[in-house]
Formats: sequence, C-alpha cells, structure tokens
Amino acid sequence: MDPIKKRNIRNWAFLIGTILIVFVLGILATSIIERKYESSYAGLEKKDIKQNDPRNAVWGEQFPQQYESYMATEDTTFKSMYNGSAMIDELKDDPKLVILWAGYAFAKDYNQSRGHAYAIKDLRNSLRPGNLYPTDTAKGLPGTCWTCKSPDVPRYMAEKGVAEFYKTSFEKLGPEIVNPIGCGDCHDSKTMNLTITRPALVEAYINQGKDIKKATHNEMRSLVCAQCHVEYYFDKKNVKNPKVPYLTFPWTKGMTAESIEKYYDEKEFKDWVHPISKAKMIKAQHPDYETYTTGIHAKKGVSCADCHMPYKTEGGTKFTDHHIQSPLNNTQNSCQVCHRDDANSLMDDVYSRQKSIKENVISLEENLVKAHIEAGAAWKLGATEAQMKDILMDIRHAQWRWDYSTAGHGASFHAPVEIGRTVSSGLSIALEARVKLARLLASLGQKNPVSMPDISTKAKAQAYIGLNMEKLKADKEKWKKEILPTWDAKAKARESKYGK
Amino acid sequence: MDPIKKRNIRNWAFLIGTILIVFVLGILATSIIERKYESSYAGLEKKDIKQNDPRNAVWGEQFPQQYESYMATEDTTFKSMYNGSAMIDELKDDPKLVILWAGYAFAKDYNQSRGHAYAIKDLRNSLRPGNLYPTDTAKGLPGTCWTCKSPDVPRYMAEKGVAEFYKTSFEKLGPEIVNPIGCGDCHDSKTMNLTITRPALVEAYINQGKDIKKATHNEMRSLVCAQCHVEYYFDKKNVKNPKVPYLTFPWTKGMTAESIEKYYDEKEFKDWVHPISKAKMIKAQHPDYETYTTGIHAKKGVSCADCHMPYKTEGGTKFTDHHIQSPLNNTQNSCQVCHRDDANSLMDDVYSRQKSIKENVISLEENLVKAHIEAGAAWKLGATEAQMKDILMDIRHAQWRWDYSTAGHGASFHAPVEIGRTVSSGLSIALEARVKLARLLASLGQKNPVSMPDISTKAKAQAYIGLNMEKLKADKEKWKKEILPTWDAKAKARESKYGK
Repeated sequence: MDPIKKRNIRNWAFLIGTILIVFVLGILATSIIERKYESSYAGLEKKDIKQNDPRNAVWGEQFPQQYESYMATEDTTFKSMYNGSAMIDELKDDPKLVILWAGYAFAKDYNQSRGHAYAIKDLRNSLRPGNLYPTDTAKGLPGTCWTCKSPDVPRYMAEKGVAEFYKTSFEKLGPEIVNPIGCGDCHDSKTMNLTITRPALVEAYINQGKDIKKATHNEMRSLVCAQCHVEYYFDKKNVKNPKVPYLTFPWTKGMTAESIEKYYDEKEFKDWVHPISKAKMIKAQHPDYETYTTGIHAKKGVSCADCHMPYKTEGGTKFTDHHIQSPLNNTQNSCQVCHRDDANSLMDDVYSRQKSIKENVISLEENLVKAHIEAGAAWKLGATEAQMKDILMDIRHAQWRWDYSTAGHGASFHAPVEIGRTVSSGLSIALEARVKLARLLASLGQKNPVSMPDISTKAKAQAYIGLNMEKLKADKEKWKKEILPTWDAKAKARESKYGK
Repeated sequence: MDPIKKRNIRNWAFLIGTILIVFVLGILATSIIERKYESSYAGLEKKDIKQNDPRNAVWGEQFPQQYESYMATEDTTFKSMYNGSAMIDELKDDPKLVILWAGYAFAKDYNQSRGHAYAIKDLRNSLRPGNLYPTDTAKGLPGTCWTCKSPDVPRYMAEKGVAEFYKTSFEKLGPEIVNPIGCGDCHDSKTMNLTITRPALVEAYINQGKDIKKATHNEMRSLVCAQCHVEYYFDKKNVKNPKVPYLTFPWTKGMTAESIEKYYDEKEFKDWVHPISKAKMIKAQHPDYETYTTGIHAKKGVSCADCHMPYKTEGGTKFTDHHIQSPLNNTQNSCQVCHRDDANSLMDDVYSRQKSIKENVISLEENLVKAHIEAGAAWKLGATEAQMKDILMDIRHAQWRWDYSTAGHGASFHAPVEIGRTVSSGLSIALEARVKLARLLASLGQKNPVSMPDISTKAKAQAYIGLNMEKLKADKEKWKKEILPTWDAKAKARESKYGK
C-alpha cells in the first residue's frame, strides 16, 4: 500500500479511537455526578428542620439512610466474648454486684445497655428510678437523670433554661422526655454540623481552661459521644446554682481513676453510704471517653465514630452508618479499614484483652464483697469510727477503681494497659483494707474468718441485702400501667403542635 | 523540510536515545552486581571456619560487618525510661529485692545485664557464683550455669557430651568457657544458617511433641534467642540422667506464669527455701521468649531479630545488625520500619506501658516483703507447719508471678496486657497470704502490725538478712587475682592449637 494512504488510515483510526474514549469518559462523569447527587439529599424535596426538633423521624425524612441505619439500633443481637445477645442481666450474671451496690438502686436492676433507640424505653422499664406518682410528696430522682436520654433535653433546656431542667423532678419531666437519643443530640438542624448540645461538656472544657468551639471536626467525632459517655456527678454545691443537682464532669484534676478519685475526695462527695460497711461510696457512671483517651486508638487519632459509626456504602452512595454498635458486628467497615487481618483473628485480640482484665476484675470483686462484709462484722463487734476510718476510705477507693474500670463500654479493649493498671491498683487497696480488717477483727475477738453469706444467685444476694423484689416489680408494673399512658398522651398533644 | 527527511532525523534521534538509555542501564546493572558482591563476602579471601570454633574474631575475619556490629555490644549506654546507662545496680535501685531473694545468691549481687560481649566478664565478676578454689571440697555451682554464656559450650558439649557438661563443676569448666556469647551460638559454621546449638530447646520441643527442625526461617530468627532467653531450671530427676543438674525448660503445660507454676508445683521443685518465711521459692530466670509469645508483635510474626537486630546499610551493603540492643536505641531501623510515627512518640508509648506495669510491680514487692517478714514473725510466735502451709504456698506463687513478670528483658513492653494480668494475679495471691497472716498473727498474740525493718538502702537490707558484703567482696577480689589468670592461661594454651 502507498505509505501516504497507509498513514491516512492510521490517522482516521486514531481519531475514531479518541472519539470513543471521550464518549466513555462522558458517561463515567455523568455517573459520578449522579452518585454525588444521590448521596446528598437523595433527590428528596428539601424541607427545613426546626431547631431542637426532637422527633428523629422528621429528620429521617431528609436523611433516610442515616435514619434507617439509626433505627437499626433496635437490633438487640451482637457479638461479644459471651456470645450473648443484649440485655444480659448483669446482676444475674454476677450476683456479687448486688452486694457491692447494696443500698443503691443498681442493686435492684442492672442490665447490659441496648441501642440508643431504647434509651427512653429502658429507663422507663428499669426498677432503678422508683415509681413515684404526681401526688407523692417523697423526693425522688432529679430531672438531671434524664439528661442523656433524649433530644427532648436540649429542646427543654432551650425553652426553660439549664438549671431549671436539672431542678425539675424526674417524674415531672417524664412527659417531656420521650424521644430516644437521636439526631438532635449531635447535629445542628440547619447545617447538619456536629454540635455539642449538653452544657456539662462545654462547662467541663471551660473548667479546664479550654474552649470546645476550637475542637476539630475529627475531635467532634468523639466529643459528641463524650457528652454522655463519661463519668459525671450531680453537684449540689455548684456556685451559680446552689442546691441544684447540677450535672458536672469531675475532670479538673485529670481523667484517670486516681485523678477523679482525688477530685471527689477533696469535695467529700459521696453517692451513697454502703449499708453493710458504712463506707461512703462513689458510683462510677460510664467513663468511656476518659478511658478511650488513654488508649492507642485515641493516640492514633481514631475517633469514636471511626469504629462505631464507620462509613457504609449503599447502592451508589457512601454515608456514615448511624447504626451505632460494637465494631465486632461490623469488622469489615471498622477494624479492617486499618487492620489487614482476618476478622476472627481481630476478634480474638479483643477477647484476649478482655479476658485478661476480667480475671482480675473478678478477684477484685470477691475481695470487695469480703471487705464490705468483714467491715459489717467489725461494726457489729463494736469497732469505733476511728478504727474504721482508714478501712472505709480504702473500700471507697478500691470499689471506685473497680467501677471506673468496669462500668463503661469496652474499657478493657479501649485501654487494656490502663485498665489493667487501675484494676491492679484497686486490688492493692482492697488488700490493705482486708489486712487491716483481719487485724481489727482479731482485736475485737473474731479469730476465724468472717462467714460469708450465700450469694450464689441474684435472688439470694438481693434477699441478703433486704430487697423485696416481688413488691418492687409489682409496684413497677402498676406504675407503668397507670402513669406511662399519661406521659405519652401529654407528649402526643405537645408534639401535635409542632407541625410536620 | 521534506517529510521523509524529517522522519529520518526522528528515527536517528530515537536510535541514539535508546543507545544512551541502554548504556545507563548497563552501568546500573554493574553497580547492583557489585553491591551484591560487597554484601556477600566483601571481597575477602574465603576461608573455612571450623565447626564449633568459639572464637568470634575468627568468624569476624569472614564477616567483618556482622562482627564489628556484634562488637558494638560492648557499648554500655542505652535509652530507657530511667535515662540510665547499663549496669544499674538493681539491688541499690530497689533494696526490697534483697529481702525477696534472702538466702539466694541474687541477694548478694544483681545488676542490669550488659551486652553479649560481656557475658563471660560479668559472670566472672559477679558475687553470685561464689569463689571456690580447685582444692575446695565444698559443692559449688554446677557447670550448667555456664550453658548460656559462650560458644565454647556447644564446642565442649560436642567434645565431651551434654550430660558430662552439666555434671562438671562450675570451677572446673572455668578455663573452658571463655569466649562471650557470639557467632557459633546461633550460626552453622559451614552454611551460616541459623541453628540451635543448645539441647534444652530441642528437648523442650520434643517434650511438647514438636520438632524444632520444622521451624521456619522467620521462627528461627526468634528461636535462636529462645535458646537462652527463657525460663529454665536444673532438673535433678531427669530420667536419662538422674542426679545430673540437667537444664530443662518447664514448658509442657504452657508458657504462662500459671502454667509454669503448676509444672513446678507438680514436680515439687524449689530453687531455695526463704530463710525468713521458710517458703519454698522458685527463682524466675528471664522468660523473655515466653512473654514475647503472648504479645502483639509475636502475633504479627515479628521476630526478636526484626527489632533487636534490624537490617542496616553501610556503604552500598545491607546486612543484619549484630549490635543486639534495645530497639529504642535504634528506632529508625526497628520500630519505624513498620510504625510511621515520630521516634519520641513511639518511645513514649513504650515508657507509658512500662510505667503502668511498674506501679503495681512495686506494690506487689512491698506486699511480698511484708508477707515474708510477717511469716517470719508467725514462726517466732510458735506457728505450726499446718498453720503456715497455705500461707507459704501463697508466698511462693505470688513471688513467682512477680519474678516471672520482672526478671526478663522488657516483658512489660513485649506483653503489657499479659504482664499486667500476671502482676495483678500475684497481688491477689499476696493479698490472701497477708490476710491469713494477719489472722494467724492475731491468734498467736500479735495484735499490732509486725514492725518492718529499715531496708531503705541496699546495705541496710543486706545487713538485715545477715550478709557480710565486705568479706564477700574481698574474697572475690582475692579469688579473681589468684584464679582467673590460671583460667585464661589454660584457655590460651588450648586455643593456640586451633590454628587460624
């Protein structure tokens, strides 16, 4: 063939090839744009959400994927080293807890927590808050107990004021706080930015000389959780709001068990007096954020959301999975994004850390139970306040360190070394208490070991501390039948005025 | 220009370009080959090394880079959280150890270990082996004590037999074991492959139903270390070699503190009887390999050599750095190969783990010291064997767990969770012992806490347990002057026959 002709053919082929490639690129670009569109508002008609609207379903109309995944927190099955499902009855599982919390509501009822969608339901069902009626004159729980349960809280606080919220009784707030933890707890309704809605965290930052508004987006992905997943107490000596049970984070000395213990000691704060040992006790809440900060994931800048709300794809869109859950249910989107390991191997790593800690937690519990009962025996034999003072302080500290280590969610995975250290330090203090008790008991004429009650079941342990569980349960059922419908009716009437 | 001419010019330019590129590739290829050559035998005349030649310098003639880096183990400065240099006097640093090891040679002298190049020197200088003379009839240490110190050991074992080596007295082997830990301990002189030269590890594998010959190269990079960096004891009930202090690894029940404790308990093995408490004690050696296997680095397949002997480049060659040392001295070649973090941040991670463990280690030590002394007080007040039995078993177990956790090199970094657990379990047992002691003491008429001696310094602690340190040191100096030269002369005469 003539070389010129040959070249012409080549040139035409090149032109056609180019046209084809550009055409395919065009299709690809359109597809990308479409997917971006899907992932923003999914093609829905955009409506404004009112500020502090507590109704999760209303937000869900604009953000169906986030809402639907949030609703999956109703699922109550999950993986754990106990191969269990949620709502493990912790007192049944380990009746020693009944003795440790004797005199405190946790000895009545304490279940493993369920998903956020159950926040209201589970608190209403719990035996802990008591069963007060509007006509009762007894002083029940403060409204402060509702603080973490609902986006109705920022709504009510915005309407009535923060101190007013804390001051109002638990029963009076019942009809107000009805929507479970949801959208408005962490998101600004206009910008959808992450936002802090609970004043206690903002104030904790101020008390440490910091400004939470300067937090980065990555920090916010943990701080929205730290609004509730922390250690806190009701401070009745708040300078600006005296006598109000003011929700406060005890962080000014640091976040370790020892720092917080020192804070409470200096304030001479107690949650309750143990009826057996007479020790002034502190109940740990769930210091998840505190323990998380001492672990390796926090050090590496991994936020709560990275593992508990990892990105998810659905069809062509990518979004944050609002099915907040154990990452062990979802290793492919959480752990395995960073850790290129087999899921079973990763889970074994988690379980082996948890088992390591658990073993000594149980030893600490056993010693605490004995210490309470031995202290009770010492009182009965005529021990004096002076003889008991150090022992009771030891019991207070040892049990606080145990509770700090175990009350949270996954502390023994989040920070196994720090929690191991804390449990061990608790053991060391419990040791001191029991050695002192053995000496004291002997000096009071008790030569043999104090005999321990049979607390092999929850029922036996509860009977030992004098709880009439049948009555508590019957009262609860009656109260639920008589009171809950009135709460729901009032809530329905109020919400009907919001409009859609 | 004429298009045909234009094309010709283009073709010529293409040809010349190709020639230039190929030329540069040729140079590069030569350079690569040269570097490979450098890194193999560095251009030296190859000589055969005799099997079991214990002289490191002879191997060094063939492998100058490996040898020179090995010789750097003479360097005694290193990084640690104590900012210290090596040869910390551990007894001075923590005089409680003197009480814990009362009646055992470690109470006389215990320094932080130095590099492999000091293996012979430091053992000769130590007060622990005693100062026997050839004419002495007293029974001193067995030759078994030399097993880990020198490539003279496999040489001597090959010549005289394994049991014969263990049977010979420490003093008689003195002139034989003179070259510090080096090349022949881990390498085959013909192939330079990693090899196991110590029978105890081979036998430990057989006892577990495994074959060490099936170990992978990567496993061998840890197993050569595991020849010595393990827990071991001298088994005088060895079936094939009764009454020989036969070096044995107690691994058949597992490698945790509890498994090994159970092994020793079943054999009713003791290292010594504590003169104060009369507890039958076990001295942990340095269970480094055992604790390493429970840590995350082992799980990820990281071998001892990966961190303690990482690859190094020098000039154009890459080789294994035989300057075995703390990776903290060498983070760029060790940690940072995998961890893309700042060196200071990585070191902080190590120190924070170590500090977490250390805190409870000290608490455990304090309780063990008290337990020994309280047990001593109980004996003096007339306690019976039956009353003391459980208490002494508790002391044995608690101190074993402490020693297992602390006697090794870096256990609190290699396996912080497992070591935290073990220390905590030790605390728990020490607690039981002291509670029982408090009761027993009270029943024997001791109402107040047993008064504790002043052990605030090493000297005071050693005086308390009745050691005459001045005499021990003077005897040692005399012995060193009179005996060591005879050892060295005999060794020189023997080695002069090896040829070069």
